[in-house]
Amino acid sequence: MERIYASYWLETGDDPARAAEVIAGEQSSGTFVALATETPELKERSGARVERINILGHSKEPSLPGGMRSERYTQCELELSWPLENTGASLPNLMSTIAGNLFELRQVSGLRLTGLKLPKAFADAYPGPAFGIEGTRRLTGVERGPLIGTIIKPSIGLSVEETVQQVRELVAGGIDFIKDDELQADGGRCPFDERVRAVMRVINEHAERTGKKVMMAFNLTGDLDEMRRRHDLIVAEGGTCAMAVLNSIGLVGLRELRRHAQVPIHAHRAGWGYLTRSPQLGWDYAPWQQLWRLAGADHMHVNGLSNKFSEPDESVVAAARSVLAPVIEGADMVSTMPVFSSGQTGLQAADTYAAIGCADLIHTAGGGIFGHPQGVSAGVEALREAWVAAMEGVPLAQHAKGNKALQAALGFWK
Amino acid sequence: MERIYASYWLETGDDPARAAEVIAGEQSSGTFVALATETPELKERSGARVERINILGHSKEPSLPGGMRSERYTQCELELSWPLENTGASLPNLMSTIAGNLFELRQVSGLRLTGLKLPKAFADAYPGPAFGIEGTRRLTGVERGPLIGTIIKPSIGLSVEETVQQVRELVAGGIDFIKDDELQADGGRCPFDERVRAVMRVINEHAERTGKKVMMAFNLTGDLDEMRRRHDLIVAEGGTCAMAVLNSIGLVGLRELRRHAQVPIHAHRAGWGYLTRSPQLGWDYAPWQQLWRLAGADHMHVNGLSNKFSEPDESVVAAARSVLAPVIEGADMVSTMPVFSSGQTGLQAADTYAAIGCADLIHTAGGGIFGHPQGVSAGVEALREAWVAAMEGVPLAQHAKGNKALQAALGFWK
Repeated sequence: MERIYASYWLETGDDPARAAEVIAGEQSSGTFVALATETPELKERSGARVERINILGHSKEPSLPGGMRSERYTQCELELSWPLENTGASLPNLMSTIAGNLFELRQVSGLRLTGLKLPKAFADAYPGPAFGIEGTRRLTGVERGPLIGTIIKPSIGLSVEETVQQVRELVAGGIDFIKDDELQADGGRCPFDERVRAVMRVINEHAERTGKKVMMAFNLTGDLDEMRRRHDLIVAEGGTCAMAVLNSIGLVGLRELRRHAQVPIHAHRAGWGYLTRSPQLGWDYAPWQQLWRLAGADHMHVNGLSNKFSEPDESVVAAARSVLAPVIEGADMVSTMPVFSSGQTGLQAADTYAAIGCADLIHTAGGGIFGHPQGVSAGVEALREAWVAAMEGVPLAQHAKGNKALQAALGFWK
Repeated sequence: MERIYASYWLETGDDPARAAEVIAGEQSSGTFVALATETPELKERSGARVERINILGHSKEPSLPGGMRSERYTQCELELSWPLENTGASLPNLMSTIAGNLFELRQVSGLRLTGLKLPKAFADAYPGPAFGIEGTRRLTGVERGPLIGTIIKPSIGLSVEETVQQVRELVAGGIDFIKDDELQADGGRCPFDERVRAVMRVINEHAERTGKKVMMAFNLTGDLDEMRRRHDLIVAEGGTCAMAVLNSIGLVGLRELRRHAQVPIHAHRAGWGYLTRSPQLGWDYAPWQQLWRLAGADHMHVNGLSNKFSEPDESVVAAARSVLAPVIEGADMVSTMPVFSSGQTGLQAADTYAAIGCADLIHTAGGGIFGHPQGVSAGVEALREAWVAAMEGVPLAQHAKGNKALQAALGFWK
């Protein structure tokens, strides 16, 4: 029978093998007391299995409070598996199973979901992204290299007209991709409908004149009817992307948006910090992004190298690689495009390219573009040229000798 | 202008006032660099405001890694406010604002959302529960005291016929409320449709014979169409409750289920541990439950006193009180019913009653009912009588003198 495999980093004050059995039991057929009705046959058929425990180390103190008292706490890698039959190929029920009540167990003084291996049935049940890397390239006309992108700033507070001014400058500057901030959805200062209509006029005019259609990710996050209606407006106005905040709408929200959507879904991870910032609790990005990709995310945020947040580069690289890896081994599913952001300039291009081995990504920069002394157009060109250098393996300073915009950018990027 | 208020526990290696401004900026009109477009007028209108900082203490080491290095870290209470105009009365956009990118900031070495005060506009925009305490009492015929409830165990692995056997015993024993486990939705061993049909036959027969309709919370967690279809089956078969796992379906999922539902929604919090188990990160229950109540949760889980998990009693009490408090001060909204579970017996009745000041709750027990030497019927009676004693202020041992079932229960409850 097909099984679901999830791996965890576990810390326990109990014997690790016993703690693992308790976790497996809690998340399948066991409970706190032995039940006569949990027969060996039932357990064999429906019980979660402890597949692997690797001891990593010990400590005197528990990482998280509230668990059982102990002389010592053991850290280990744990792998559990469940029969697919328990949940069926259902993402919401998968979620309840791999990330349900287990984090609160007394045997647990630290627990983090680090990996997930799903049977192909999930790829049959869920559509994955409709556009992904290829579709996004097709819609933007960017055949190779990253999409050069940016975010409208200030995040919130601009009027529609002020937003349009910024878009006009960016579009004229040759940008490929623009996004709303995750805080900007349908506030009173910059209502969604007006914003879409006014911004798309600028983008459409530019497209008619030049043949280049800039992709704007309008943040349509909201209740379901609102999202559907806003999506339809985007499409009616000729827009090519819809953005939604995953933690704010949930798996059902994304799944329904995907069913309805005729444009790529730009998936924002705002709130990710509360799921991941404690190293001893919560989620690694790898298993988390799998659920959202299956549900239909075309673009997924992975932060950026040398970012302004607290996430170390190795975590960013792991996140980006996970987005580019197959969501289910052997399943035929459209590839989601990773989005790099936060404190980004052309200085991160070579390292980013080296770390992930391709340029199938959106690279968004704010100050790295707007700060260019020769203006937005030169800022966009400089970032694009930094990627040309990265992909050709030419040092940035050398490549800059042949490009004035890049040369000037090297003076202010830091 | 109406504002949204959120309070946090914050730890920072920076000057707390500066850190507070960074957080307020990140979640409204600011960004990492000063922008000319963030005018004083714009900031005045759309910026988040630091309302209050209370220093609580200092430490040498940061609680969470990845933030800025510092000689000392300051813990404080922080209150921020936002103009309602930024988000409108939208729960998903509220979520992105109060619990978005702020947890990842370098100025933050610990951040926990502890409180939320919303303007009435949210109560106009969202329906809240349709049934709540009153509706649940009406549907079950339990006029006073708690609903005595239990959970089908093993959580998963029973066949439909084995489930029905358990329900038959419970219904005959006088139980008020039964729920599926959060792991049991539509697995191959116990498909949802078959389970509902078979279980409702037992419940309906009993209701016809005795006039007492037991409320069974069938776990319909799934994709939206599945949930709607399953809900309709519950209603068609005469069922009176639908259960969903909040973290698995998300805000949009619950909101849509509420729009569709003709029976109370039993909201399960599986996964709550990864949101709360680190004291320096994530969510207190009070602000979290507000979002779900507004979206329509009729019953919300709050764990139980002396539970088998890692949550201390004071946290359980705070959670239960928050569910019983008005979701928005002064708004007229149906009251959500708290659900106590995990290692529960009649021994917790008096303390629970004293802690929350009422008996408007569902008290679920497994071993506390099934373990009764005289059978399920005596187990149910004993738990109910323990509550009679609690509500009348009579010591348990004294009340037990007049009730054999309770007397016998005192021998095995511990």
